[in-house]
Amino acid sequence: MRMTAVIMAGGKGERFWPKSRTACPKQFLSLTTDGETMIQKTVRRLTPLVKPEDIFIVTNTAYLSHVSEQLPEIPAENVIAEPCPRNTAPCIGMAAGIIRKKYDDAVMLVLPSDHLIHAEDMYRDTLRKAALAAEQGMNLVTLGITPTYPETGYGYIKYVSGSGRNGVYQVERFVEKPDVETARDYLRSGCYLWNSGMFIWKASSILANIAQFMPELSDGLVPIVEAYGTPHFGEVLEQQFSTLPSESIDYGIMEKAEHIFTIPGSFGWDDVGSWLALERINHTDHEGNMISGDVVSIDTKNCTISGGTRLIAALGVEDIVIVDTQDALLVCDKNSTQDIKKILAELRSKERTELL
Amino acid sequence: MRMTAVIMAGGKGERFWPKSRTACPKQFLSLTTDGETMIQKTVRRLTPLVKPEDIFIVTNTAYLSHVSEQLPEIPAENVIAEPCPRNTAPCIGMAAGIIRKKYDDAVMLVLPSDHLIHAEDMYRDTLRKAALAAEQGMNLVTLGITPTYPETGYGYIKYVSGSGRNGVYQVERFVEKPDVETARDYLRSGCYLWNSGMFIWKASSILANIAQFMPELSDGLVPIVEAYGTPHFGEVLEQQFSTLPSESIDYGIMEKAEHIFTIPGSFGWDDVGSWLALERINHTDHEGNMISGDVVSIDTKNCTISGGTRLIAALGVEDIVIVDTQDALLVCDKNSTQDIKKILAELRSKERTELL
Repeated sequence: MRMTAVIMAGGKGERFWPKSRTACPKQFLSLTTDGETMIQKTVRRLTPLVKPEDIFIVTNTAYLSHVSEQLPEIPAENVIAEPCPRNTAPCIGMAAGIIRKKYDDAVMLVLPSDHLIHAEDMYRDTLRKAALAAEQGMNLVTLGITPTYPETGYGYIKYVSGSGRNGVYQVERFVEKPDVETARDYLRSGCYLWNSGMFIWKASSILANIAQFMPELSDGLVPIVEAYGTPHFGEVLEQQFSTLPSESIDYGIMEKAEHIFTIPGSFGWDDVGSWLALERINHTDHEGNMISGDVVSIDTKNCTISGGTRLIAALGVEDIVIVDTQDALLVCDKNSTQDIKKILAELRSKERTELL
Repeated sequence: MRMTAVIMAGGKGERFWPKSRTACPKQFLSLTTDGETMIQKTVRRLTPLVKPEDIFIVTNTAYLSHVSEQLPEIPAENVIAEPCPRNTAPCIGMAAGIIRKKYDDAVMLVLPSDHLIHAEDMYRDTLRKAALAAEQGMNLVTLGITPTYPETGYGYIKYVSGSGRNGVYQVERFVEKPDVETARDYLRSGCYLWNSGMFIWKASSILANIAQFMPELSDGLVPIVEAYGTPHFGEVLEQQFSTLPSESIDYGIMEKAEHIFTIPGSFGWDDVGSWLALERINHTDHEGNMISGDVVSIDTKNCTISGGTRLIAALGVEDIVIVDTQDALLVCDKNSTQDIKKILAELRSKERTELL
């Protein structure tokens, strides 16, 4: 069966403000020192497995130019632009419908556009295994990440102990982000995985699940999929997409469906969820600082400093994130990186839209 | 007797980097919200007491244009430009020689150019009293500031208990910056004042003391003073000034001379010695933040934020100083503001002179 990939690239990446902006969110930025953007990495690590003409990008109309500039190898008809954000279920459902229409059926690798993978060979091996499982009839397959510490920022997948067949486990349930005590219990129990947001299934399988658990979405997708490939597609998408229910695939399908399987992976996955990730994924100096740009740091420890064109002098500070751009500067305690949305809310309330 | 003032304006103001630069140090900046520069304030608060034509500015050749722009009321021949820094003794000695030549003798108010005074009427009253004491024959008079807390960043003046006559006290000795325990003892004893660096004496008195305690300086000044008022002055100054001993007036004269008097003042003096001073001299918000410029602060306490043209977003930080300029940004712990010189040393070693 044909293997396709659907890359979800409509996110706003607000936790990477001020580098990430409404006009150019995280997936289109380079957060590593190699200059490659997050979405370029996502596509490059896939192409040994999936041909560019079988890779679909679902993004927002505002980001079409970024996609065509950064990913010229992806055919234009594979780039689908949502006129408004509707969370992951409509995005995935629409892509599944289009793939079903185009290829009758195919395996879909559903992947975020803004995560990092360190061991790419292992990652592709795991995807291959998952694709085989999906092809052989397993309803819904998700990649779980073997946890290495009690992270409280991720959702978890509990699998049925002893259910493993060739490295594929039955999912017992999905669980929300835990507190640190619960996360420690999960780590100890050995039956919990991090929910990576990577899914593998046949287009026909996910569409059947959507029909069962999200009938409104299922119905709403019909005219859009019908219009795909015709001159009216853009117009129909513009009219119809906003009427679809805004829902995540996790809540809409995964927490309700049965016969879900997970494949544990340990290929060095990082969701790059906040500025704190930079010190995990990049080199830190002997004082624990992650520094890029023109920086002088003195008596400074465990800071993340991402400079622009001007000099940044850090003196006597610890556990601080400093991010400088042409028109906005962030100075943030490491414990507050999840609150960047408060700044954006403040800027919105002051109608400083040029800074969002 | 004529009353003159000598304003010392050759300092580099390094502790206010990055706003203060080699090319435009602290005394030529506005650090308050009223837009007036420090040296403009110094002159304005003096003019009810001393006519502009009797005010002398001793500065560095590099700052002549700042002086003429900011203080057009001061006659050009009163602005004396040192070709190189030689600390306060040569500066004051040269001014005293010039005043002696010009007016035979006069009272000199010797004043820093970069301090703040809150109660200006009281300040002028104290200067008047000091000038009278100097005129009546007291050798050297210094203004002491009644301490209000155990500051460790200032030198102190110990006066002889019970020696007061009309508010003028005999100085017992000058003491170096104390540790905090010693500073507490000083505060309790009631016989210690902060050394403000403001001196009042007759030109003839200070010259006599220089002749006695710094004969090399005294001799070196002769050709410079001789040339003052002639077309050769600039040339002679350029040749001679660098040969003068680099010494402070405190160490060279005040710690050695006898018959020194002090007048305690409590007119709200602030030496504006570091970025920390800004929260003393300007308005702070209800979270204790001193904020100027385009700033969004959230969960931020006791920070000093001095912005430029771009937005600064401060999130979850405490006791931090953030100073932004076009080409350099400082993020500094409040306990490290005295170490800004370390940054400047680093920039010098990297030959980043454009940032100094």
